[in-house]
Amino acid sequence: MAEKVILLDLFASMFGMRARVALAAKGVQYEYREEDLRNKSQLLLQSNPVHKKIPVLIHNDKPVCESLVIVEYIDEVWNQKYPLLPSHPYQRAQARFWADYIDKKLYAVGRMVWTKSGEELEAAKKEFVEILKQLESELGDKAFFGGESFGFLDVALVTYSTWFHTYETCGGLSIGEHCPKLSEWVKRCLEIDFVSESLPDPAKIYDFALMLRKVFGIDAS
Amino acid sequence: MAEKVILLDLFASMFGMRARVALAAKGVQYEYREEDLRNKSQLLLQSNPVHKKIPVLIHNDKPVCESLVIVEYIDEVWNQKYPLLPSHPYQRAQARFWADYIDKKLYAVGRMVWTKSGEELEAAKKEFVEILKQLESELGDKAFFGGESFGFLDVALVTYSTWFHTYETCGGLSIGEHCPKLSEWVKRCLEIDFVSESLPDPAKIYDFALMLRKVFGIDAS
Repeated sequence: MAEKVILLDLFASMFGMRARVALAAKGVQYEYREEDLRNKSQLLLQSNPVHKKIPVLIHNDKPVCESLVIVEYIDEVWNQKYPLLPSHPYQRAQARFWADYIDKKLYAVGRMVWTKSGEELEAAKKEFVEILKQLESELGDKAFFGGESFGFLDVALVTYSTWFHTYETCGGLSIGEHCPKLSEWVKRCLEIDFVSESLPDPAKIYDFALMLRKVFGIDAS
Repeated sequence: MAEKVILLDLFASMFGMRARVALAAKGVQYEYREEDLRNKSQLLLQSNPVHKKIPVLIHNDKPVCESLVIVEYIDEVWNQKYPLLPSHPYQRAQARFWADYIDKKLYAVGRMVWTKSGEELEAAKKEFVEILKQLESELGDKAFFGGESFGFLDVALVTYSTWFHTYETCGGLSIGEHCPKLSEWVKRCLEIDFVSESLPDPAKIYDFALMLRKVFGIDAS
């Protein structure tokens, strides 16, 4: 059967990037549709009526929402190539636990790092570094979170690396100084063609963040 | 190999109950250990150093944390009996999406229903009913969320039904009036022996909630 795969996304979304990396890992051809979140498409509103958020993967007219659910779906449907989740139930549980940890912790605190100032910024930076250190500790001396090969948890986290320059510049911190092993892990991930080719230029993310800071009234426009 | 399965739990936790229901569905024998959350055991702190929360499933000395991760783990390890997740990737994605929806929405608002008063309570009740209606709409005319048989999403939600009496009594609302199909679904779930035998008496949950209301200073002690 001819596959029809559409991804409703926003270039700067670390959640959308997860779907892009997973589809690229599997070599799936798809149509990418950039959404304007201030003027969402009818297709987005119909496909994700509950959250009305990107990313949405539409596979043969059926929508799948929520980035980690999408990545598991991609891994299960295109299961012949490049398995992302580990094969052993215990390692699968660990990968799911840490991906959930990223979703519960990293986005909200990261957002504070590039939007807040003063005491709020200092508190956010402290927590942000603690979260990354926790993740670095889980990585340990492994090449990737899953071990020797790039997998589910790597997909879940590597997309944040496109925002590292923004966190560092807006927040005034050095991730590499606090988390050298994690920084090395980012480099290893980016040496994989399908990863680096799926991720946007951090400079463009920074421009996007600066634009949003003006929209939010943080910086003068 | 002899299985050694321990569940660190709290009787009133809808998250812990998910593990209990899933283990019962599979017929897994396990040691239940009730935790005192004001004085957590060393085993709990060691087994879940990140969140320090129940439930934790310890299987042959290896801890698995976070209730939905635990339920998927149980389903994958004891895969010979009573499959919980659907076999088709799309239905699996749907089940995971809605379980995630429950985790993101229901607990926090439900807690407000039994702890708040005045305008805060009214706003919480409105949102609480909207969430349940959204879930009822996903149930539709099916016997269970997964279709003909009790599955993953049923496990994720049915444990909340032990709190319905508390929500209704503290919040002053009738769930059955707003969501008759969902109430019928609860009854169908409770007709399954391993479900009803795994869930605590709603009257005991209510006593527990009243005790907590006193601890929180909501009611005079």
